Amino acid sequence: MSTAMDRTRIEHDLLGDREVPADALYGVHTLRALENFMISGTPISRYTELVSALAYVKQAAAVANHELGLLDNQRCAAIVQACEEIQHGRHHEQFVVDAIQGGAGTSTNMNANEVIANRALEILGHRRGQYEYLHPLEHVNLSQSTNDVYPSALKVALHFAVARLRRGMEVLSGEFGAKATEFADVLKMGRTQLQDAVPMTLGQEFGTFAVMINEDSARLREALVLISEINLGGTAIGTGLNAHPDYAAKVCAELRRITGLELSTAADLVEATQDVGALVQLSGVLKRTAVKLSKICNDLRLLSSGPRVGLGEITLPTVQAGSSIMPGKVNPVIPEVVSQIAFEVIGNDITITMAAEAGQLQLNAFEPIIAHSLFKSLNHLTGGCDALARLCVPGIAANVEYLRSNVQRSIGLVTALNPHIGYEAATRLAADALSSGQAVADLAVSQGLLSPEELASILNPVTLAYASRPSAAREIM
Amino acid sequence: MSTAMDRTRIEHDLLGDREVPADALYGVHTLRALENFMISGTPISRYTELVSALAYVKQAAAVANHELGLLDNQRCAAIVQACEEIQHGRHHEQFVVDAIQGGAGTSTNMNANEVIANRALEILGHRRGQYEYLHPLEHVNLSQSTNDVYPSALKVALHFAVARLRRGMEVLSGEFGAKATEFADVLKMGRTQLQDAVPMTLGQEFGTFAVMINEDSARLREALVLISEINLGGTAIGTGLNAHPDYAAKVCAELRRITGLELSTAADLVEATQDVGALVQLSGVLKRTAVKLSKICNDLRLLSSGPRVGLGEITLPTVQAGSSIMPGKVNPVIPEVVSQIAFEVIGNDITITMAAEAGQLQLNAFEPIIAHSLFKSLNHLTGGCDALARLCVPGIAANVEYLRSNVQRSIGLVTALNPHIGYEAATRLAADALSSGQAVADLAVSQGLLSPEELASILNPVTLAYASRPSAAREIM
Amino acid sequence: MSTAMDRTRIEHDLLGDREVPADALYGVHTLRALENFMISGTPISRYTELVSALAYVKQAAAVANHELGLLDNQRCAAIVQACEEIQHGRHHEQFVVDAIQGGAGTSTNMNANEVIANRALEILGHRRGQYEYLHPLEHVNLSQSTNDVYPSALKVALHFAVARLRRGMEVLSGEFGAKATEFADVLKMGRTQLQDAVPMTLGQEFGTFAVMINEDSARLREALVLISEINLGGTAIGTGLNAHPDYAAKVCAELRRITGLELSTAADLVEATQDVGALVQLSGVLKRTAVKLSKICNDLRLLSSGPRVGLGEITLPTVQAGSSIMPGKVNPVIPEVVSQIAFEVIGNDITITMAAEAGQLQLNAFEPIIAHSLFKSLNHLTGGCDALARLCVPGIAANVEYLRSNVQRSIGLVTALNPHIGYEAATRLAADALSSGQAVADLAVSQGLLSPEELASILNPVTLAYASRPSAAREIM
Amino acid sequence: MSTAMDRTRIEHDLLGDREVPADALYGVHTLRALENFMISGTPISRYTELVSALAYVKQAAAVANHELGLLDNQRCAAIVQACEEIQHGRHHEQFVVDAIQGGAGTSTNMNANEVIANRALEILGHRRGQYEYLHPLEHVNLSQSTNDVYPSALKVALHFAVARLRRGMEVLSGEFGAKATEFADVLKMGRTQLQDAVPMTLGQEFGTFAVMINEDSARLREALVLISEINLGGTAIGTGLNAHPDYAAKVCAELRRITGLELSTAADLVEATQDVGALVQLSGVLKRTAVKLSKICNDLRLLSSGPRVGLGEITLPTVQAGSSIMPGKVNPVIPEVVSQIAFEVIGNDITITMAAEAGQLQLNAFEPIIAHSLFKSLNHLTGGCDALARLCVPGIAANVEYLRSNVQRSIGLVTALNPHIGYEAATRLAADALSSGQAVADLAVSQGLLSPEELASILNPVTLAYASRPSAAREIM
Repeated sequence: MSTAMDRTRIEHDLLGDREVPADALYGVHTLRALENFMISGTPISRYTELVSALAYVKQAAAVANHELGLLDNQRCAAIVQACEEIQHGRHHEQFVVDAIQGGAGTSTNMNANEVIANRALEILGHRRGQYEYLHPLEHVNLSQSTNDVYPSALKVALHFAVARLRRGMEVLSGEFGAKATEFADVLKMGRTQLQDAVPMTLGQEFGTFAVMINEDSARLREALVLISEINLGGTAIGTGLNAHPDYAAKVCAELRRITGLELSTAADLVEATQDVGALVQLSGVLKRTAVKLSKICNDLRLLSSGPRVGLGEITLPTVQAGSSIMPGKVNPVIPEVVSQIAFEVIGNDITITMAAEAGQLQLNAFEPIIAHSLFKSLNHLTGGCDALARLCVPGIAANVEYLRSNVQRSIGLVTALNPHIGYEAATRLAADALSSGQAVADLAVSQGLLSPEELASILNPVTLAYASRPSAAREIM
Repeated sequence: MSTAMDRTRIEHDLLGDREVPADALYGVHTLRALENFMISGTPISRYTELVSALAYVKQAAAVANHELGLLDNQRCAAIVQACEEIQHGRHHEQFVVDAIQGGAGTSTNMNANEVIANRALEILGHRRGQYEYLHPLEHVNLSQSTNDVYPSALKVALHFAVARLRRGMEVLSGEFGAKATEFADVLKMGRTQLQDAVPMTLGQEFGTFAVMINEDSARLREALVLISEINLGGTAIGTGLNAHPDYAAKVCAELRRITGLELSTAADLVEATQDVGALVQLSGVLKRTAVKLSKICNDLRLLSSGPRVGLGEITLPTVQAGSSIMPGKVNPVIPEVVSQIAFEVIGNDITITMAAEAGQLQLNAFEPIIAHSLFKSLNHLTGGCDALARLCVPGIAANVEYLRSNVQRSIGLVTALNPHIGYEAATRLAADALSSGQAVADLAVSQGLLSPEELASILNPVTLAYASRPSAAREIM
Repeated sequence: MSTAMDRTRIEHDLLGDREVPADALYGVHTLRALENFMISGTPISRYTELVSALAYVKQAAAVANHELGLLDNQRCAAIVQACEEIQHGRHHEQFVVDAIQGGAGTSTNMNANEVIANRALEILGHRRGQYEYLHPLEHVNLSQSTNDVYPSALKVALHFAVARLRRGMEVLSGEFGAKATEFADVLKMGRTQLQDAVPMTLGQEFGTFAVMINEDSARLREALVLISEINLGGTAIGTGLNAHPDYAAKVCAELRRITGLELSTAADLVEATQDVGALVQLSGVLKRTAVKLSKICNDLRLLSSGPRVGLGEITLPTVQAGSSIMPGKVNPVIPEVVSQIAFEVIGNDITITMAAEAGQLQLNAFEPIIAHSLFKSLNHLTGGCDALARLCVPGIAANVEYLRSNVQRSIGLVTALNPHIGYEAATRLAADALSSGQAVADLAVSQGLLSPEELASILNPVTLAYASRPSAAREIM
Repeated sequence: MSTAMDRTRIEHDLLGDREVPADALYGVHTLRALENFMISGTPISRYTELVSALAYVKQAAAVANHELGLLDNQRCAAIVQACEEIQHGRHHEQFVVDAIQGGAGTSTNMNANEVIANRALEILGHRRGQYEYLHPLEHVNLSQSTNDVYPSALKVALHFAVARLRRGMEVLSGEFGAKATEFADVLKMGRTQLQDAVPMTLGQEFGTFAVMINEDSARLREALVLISEINLGGTAIGTGLNAHPDYAAKVCAELRRITGLELSTAADLVEATQDVGALVQLSGVLKRTAVKLSKICNDLRLLSSGPRVGLGEITLPTVQAGSSIMPGKVNPVIPEVVSQIAFEVIGNDITITMAAEAGQLQLNAFEPIIAHSLFKSLNHLTGGCDALARLCVPGIAANVEYLRSNVQRSIGLVTALNPHIGYEAATRLAADALSSGQAVADLAVSQGLLSPEELASILNPVTLAYASRPSAAREIM
């Protein structure tokens, strides 16, 4: 007896017969794809939310087909059980096709069909590959096409991934908010164009970071609305060929029920099948989030520059030795890694944009690279937010006395004299202060421009920092 | 008598005295900027909506200052009149600073302050440059900073420009919709991955274009909400230094009144002063629009390829000779120019992204290139939509008989047999049809798979095209 | 006896003591990095050429230090042996830090220092972690800084990776060249702007693909020159602090010897330490290669569109079933995956550009994302070229008769009449042919413009295709 | 007598008769393009080098045609004279078509043909529009197609524009070099990752800027080689249809002669006609240049941050008032504008990349946007270099004493103790210095690690800055 027979089974496709590993839940179509796409070394199983989402879609399709009398009880139950196992994290290692693949996602869909069919066959007491009892295409893929399954599953998966990122952003925003409270009365000089401007508090600076992240989170929530429209029921090009007219409504209802997501069927399925605008929009919002996170990290690096020959306003917590040659050097490695993630997300957005623009006629064949890029952006941004929230922000300390003394000696205070002595006189005063090295207030008194009392009242830094909200200033004073 | 004296006047800034052309409404600050920024040769006057928006902001500020008792009747009235003249299209040639400029928009703001001040001086019966009566900074710029005026004016201008683009998109969508109706019963083969797929109508194809453009227009409307938040009253860094606590509310109310836009004051002015996220988001939506327009134009070029050795499904109207060497050649020049605009918009989005990411601490110094890029994107997209709607779409004709015959001889029809003979049998049938050159229906009969009557019922192309909406199929038949 | 003691050892850094897995060759610095950077899940071991290159650099440094009397015989020999093992593929699984990391590559360098030190300790008969005998920083990293080690190792690794890509491109170019020969006398219509233009051969079309790829390969060879300049000896910021004045020359000579690469020491080490221009340039050339590959793949997809309702000029080999719903459908999945790789490479170029632009003062802290992006671009492009050369190009078949008949019925032939009847008469003739459906030649005779003999001579398609090389035409005829 | 007849003349194209302004040198084809492409408002005359280059190409073609006996003496002479007038700057206002246009440059070529034909007609004593004597297409465009004229003229124009940019870069590099000399003995702390690292000189910092710019200039020189290959003689698709077999060689020789450029004819004209790789490569190098310039400008802004609450290492010259609200504020507006130009150039590179990728079959229809983007990049970079060299770099002053004192109190000095006391002891010393606020040297003595004499010798900052070139250190000491 041949052991090869034990180790493999024979499957068939339009290219002919092919040995498939006997212990594989996947089949011949997956095997072809494995051999055709040896590109990134990243299997789709890396995107666990996509694998689960495929199982949700297949389960909803089976139930809808069953309700329409197209799939019998037994097969439906077996498919549902197989899908639920996948949703619970099993069999993911069987999703082996490369994340970067041709064929508009067909190989991903085939991989799902085959794994589910073979697992369902086992549940029914058959052997893997006995497709005469339950067929990957004729039963698992019934009423479906890659062109409605793949984008719909992708959108479900993105819902899960965006929710995860938003949770990370909320934690991070909370940490910045806590620092804003902690630093609420730490006076410092604000800067525009890296030049000394006017006073503010470090609390305002960190509060800004919290607000920014909350706004991006709100934008992500809006983008989710766009990816809640699915095109299940459109089949190959959106005309619904081979799907029962009631199938679209039924499968959407079932998918909504089992995922808990507010999904709906697109009004124009032909349009929905070829359009990836919602994915472009989501990527655009992720890019916006990246831009903001990088800006925040740049600020953290600037403010913590030093320790002795930099701005030295804040100190970041030490998380590792900074240098293999410079002893004791500590670097802002967490903000640095987040900025790099941001650069990657911005690059991913270009990849997604080009893939979207390259869509032709009734389909965009390039959704796999869009999916790959989106998952990378989402996962890495989540990792970045987590690193900031866990390892960096909570440990930030302010150099309070240094910041306060900087305000006193700054020339930017002269701005507050503007309404009292006019822009042109204030310009001269600023020039004198700079060239003489004197404090603005001293000079204003010695030049007889204002009395010491007037100056004390005008130049109260707390008042200056909260000019637009005098009540806030009073609280702090 | 010196003629030089007649031709110039002397103005003063922190660099010293400087001759300004006597007939210029702008002053010394503008002149410095003219000399410092000789980059693009595109003056800000090219963006007429920005110039008007600056005048709206300055007018609202004057009125708010007047209400707060900070600006007297006479000066306020003169400033208001000068601003209204600019809103009506006058003096735009005085907005001369280069669109690409350093200084975070200071030169643009200075240019506006000086033009308005000098025109107001004339209105008051003074000579240009007699700033002792009405000063560009102390009166026109009162309670303001470039850092709140410039972004607020930019947002007002973008409202106008987006409204213009959306009108152009609506017209274009209407033209595509008209074609969708005209072609509602023109049967054709749909394609996925450029390979023959299953039947549809040309009306569905053009209807998709209309839907896509409408969706983008809806996304632009949403993006407008984000640019409705202004930061007037925040002054230099958002703390409101030198502005009356009630100023922000008053200036916003007045600006809302005179522009008719639903503007509001940002909740956190420190954040709003440094954050350009709303501009990044708008650019992201414009990029999305560009991607979709380019996709549509690529489809138009594909479908009209030929005339004899291409897909030859539709004919675009001739708008110019296509070649200097090939007589009679006609090219799809309008779709070509629109795709190029799309490429530019996508490039602009990267420019805007980088400029946004480069913001530091309390300000983004790079808003001028963001503004320049946004206006280019908006204006060129408007021009592209207009060209498509005016010169291309209305004249598109369908090659009806050719399209219909293509459906009959296509192999893609085999898909409809799937539910009747199974995926594997259908695969063999398709292979036989391809190798033999025969029609799928003939072969199915000759192989005894289905009766001629069954086939006639299954393969009715109208039914196939409207499988998901049987009622639509019945209307056409 | 505690088993924990057996499973871990204690190491120390500026943060304090830390347990390290006893069987790890890496140490505490690597462990900190592992915990700090949980981003991509891709360890640097994925980039095997980088791991080897680090070992080459460390080996060269040890030898140079030994020659300068700074490292004794025994330690040098142990380090050299450890490095050679890594070059031969051993211990790569110990290079565990995330490819996306903060710290400018410090963690990668530390990982290398620790693995080499611990392996060398074993070789010397000591236990892992007994750094008093051989220290990761004081011996393995002697005379070095991350800031000269990391970029130098990266450049060595890129040499290897580019060589691999260029080999793949040469194979692919060879396959296209073979097809050019095979199709040398297959006449067809050329197209400009997707409109029928003038005759050519399919051989010319495929020959173009071969030329393009060869040109890109030549550009890559040029880019290699730029990454042959290393900065070893510059240490922290290029000033060479803590390195012997003769070290730079010695380490470069040794590295040249063991790698076989034409490396040289940069003339200005301060500049070389902060400048990543050579990496940006390399990425730019990879982007150019991607653009060309995608253009070629787009052409392959266009030319093979069909099978019945497309251009149908060529047929690509079938490598997998194309659809889960459309039986017998075959898609151009290999060109599709290559275009997606191209989109990714173009996105990577933006990531690299942004990371390069973000460099500050004496160092670019963002080289890890540059390295990560470059390796992805190089590896995926290599995979794409391989897929095209192995699975797609060799099996391409031409639809010879169809192509030839297309030439005869094309209107583009009229261009050849230009010199004989003038542009304006030819324009009228083209219009008549188009509207009447007649052949250009028939019409020219019936309108008495030229005699049948003149036309036969002028419109010989072989002559037309090789107008610039009459000798080539004669060979084919 | 009709005045309309005086103001216009009638011309004819495939769309029918059309009135052209009587005083226009351009004709009906240009007029159609004017009406079709109302996009950017930027006529091609803005790119004066492109207009001249078109005239060079047309002149060379006329001479080549004349030598081949295809164009008579008189017409040739008139065309040559018309072309020379354009090269000398005349008639540029007649090049009116929009820079953003469909049609692959046909409208630009038609514009040139018509202007030259009509001017030549005048020279020959005829009236504009009397094309029976000299025809835009049959004589001026003889042996040519847009598809060889346009890319060849573009490459000639780019040669001129790159030469101009390189001159600007050389001036700028010279200014940085002068500062490097001026600051050769100004000691300062170097920084990596914005954290204090080890000593260097400000001269080294500025010398780096000079080296960077010189390297980019060398890369541009290399890119010029690639754009020296032209495809004149290939006509429509590179097969040379309608051109004499000897034409390509003759026109190239003549063009080389009159432009003085080292042009050559591409080896494969079919490939050369569709390939825009050389333009992508040039854009890639411009992007690299932009990245470097922006990095330099970022450094200038960082180093000059302050005046009191920043790094404060250097002072940039004041070129304008910095703020409308903050008196005396001076901003780094020149570096700011250059960074914005860099962002634009990077965006342009994406536009060019997408346009290149979109090329199909025998032609890239999107060269006009490539040309437009390249000219913007080249012109704006030239403007930016000029602004830096003229208004910023020469006036930069160093805060010498402050820089020197920073070195003394820095902790980074501890690195130099590494070889003497070991990495781990040095790490502890650094930590003690930081927490106690003491100087590293003092602490090392008080802890008995080294004697004051040893420390004085080790910590000599000049030695430290020039560790890799001890001779340079001796010169300065």
